[in-house]
Amino acid sequence: MKIARFSHGETIAFGIVDEEEHELVVLKSDPMFAGYDPTGERVPLAEAKLLAPVIPRSKVVAVGRNYREHAAELGNEVPAEPLIFLKPNTSVIGPGDAIVLPRQSERVEHEGEVAVVIGRIAKNVSEADAAGVIFGYTIANDVTARDLQRRDEQWTRAKGFDTFCPLGPVIDTELDLERGTIETSVNGVRRQEGRLADMVHSIPALVAYSSSVFTLLPGDVILTGTPAGVGPIVDGDTVEVTVSGLGTLSNPVRAAG
Amino acid sequence: MKIARFSHGETIAFGIVDEEEHELVVLKSDPMFAGYDPTGERVPLAEAKLLAPVIPRSKVVAVGRNYREHAAELGNEVPAEPLIFLKPNTSVIGPGDAIVLPRQSERVEHEGEVAVVIGRIAKNVSEADAAGVIFGYTIANDVTARDLQRRDEQWTRAKGFDTFCPLGPVIDTELDLERGTIETSVNGVRRQEGRLADMVHSIPALVAYSSSVFTLLPGDVILTGTPAGVGPIVDGDTVEVTVSGLGTLSNPVRAAG
Repeated sequence: MKIARFSHGETIAFGIVDEEEHELVVLKSDPMFAGYDPTGERVPLAEAKLLAPVIPRSKVVAVGRNYREHAAELGNEVPAEPLIFLKPNTSVIGPGDAIVLPRQSERVEHEGEVAVVIGRIAKNVSEADAAGVIFGYTIANDVTARDLQRRDEQWTRAKGFDTFCPLGPVIDTELDLERGTIETSVNGVRRQEGRLADMVHSIPALVAYSSSVFTLLPGDVILTGTPAGVGPIVDGDTVEVTVSGLGTLSNPVRAAG
Repeated sequence: MKIARFSHGETIAFGIVDEEEHELVVLKSDPMFAGYDPTGERVPLAEAKLLAPVIPRSKVVAVGRNYREHAAELGNEVPAEPLIFLKPNTSVIGPGDAIVLPRQSERVEHEGEVAVVIGRIAKNVSEADAAGVIFGYTIANDVTARDLQRRDEQWTRAKGFDTFCPLGPVIDTELDLERGTIETSVNGVRRQEGRLADMVHSIPALVAYSSSVFTLLPGDVILTGTPAGVGPIVDGDTVEVTVSGLGTLSNPVRAAG
């Protein structure tokens, strides 16, 4: 099942995507907390503005160097344990929202990623039990000011600016990612591609590791790392991240006003 | 004015601390959002359990190496710009709650700090305007797994474990910190002491810098760095951080169960 959060006129709501009818089945509340309780209304997909399908109330956990070729392209080894960092929820934007290039950076780059949306309170979950705390999957762009990442010792600023965490377009609650692929393009030209099976630390391993450090809360998001091919984005670009089965997360890029 | 969040019987509420009467003037709601609207009830301070006075809905921003002597004791230079990182809201505990030593670390250390509580939405605030977005001040302990901090490239794990961000006991909305001092003791023996005037980057500078990166939201907390004297805490210890005018934040320490 694919879940969207959307605005339509004055309404902001969650909905189930009816892919045959190109409609949203409007839900009474957030299905992560309230289950799938339809209002009876339907909204044509074409009339809805999709929003970030989740706003983390606690954490966006992200992981560095989780594809071998990407670690190599930046001159790094892959880490024995997941290399985790945090992005604030104030960096989250939705599909179609602009990534704003901050004045402090001269080189902002795209990093297309699969995002795991946590659905249950979880601490010290085993890899075998990880699937049980996952609500679903969406797409993320772990936008990064590469110059600041290299200059600052910690990555918080380089990866934490407002608009640096596009999420969407939908959450898929049933996706099998085993044979999936991920691709990032800029202005229609492919820049990144990878097979999800090539993650160094698997999704269950990332959930288990994160939950060994933090209590994971419903709505927390785990970004699973980016494959090779990262590169700059500039004012006027459109960056698109496509994951098989999840659709495409598209965001324009603009300079700070 | 000193604001506490507390539990008393079945009630969890905010209150104004009446220091003469040793009572809490119970408020109808969170004064950060709803102003100071008393219910008419009073609760004896001695009967209340104080809780973390704020639960950040977005960010705990923390700053490294913000006192010269502390930077030197760990072999570091003070940075030209604030060295910021994030702690998740799942690391927050209140006064009297136990700091739990994670199995992954063999050396957990105290870092007593002043914490700034943000009261307004703030982006690109100047140093001159910083005071206008501050709700008040409290005390924090930026608990750190020093061995993991040295091993991991990013500090997220070392500083992000559950219970690694004690906050409290109260928020003071009017404190003048200029001539303040901060002191951390373990089992009654003083370990850290510093003058708040010795911060490398002042509180207005930290607010301005943070807001140049992130939108700050009401309830966000900025930890302002720790003075020299950090050291280990072990099972059975009690760690106390005292800031002039703010009282003492006391937490027991225990091994993971």
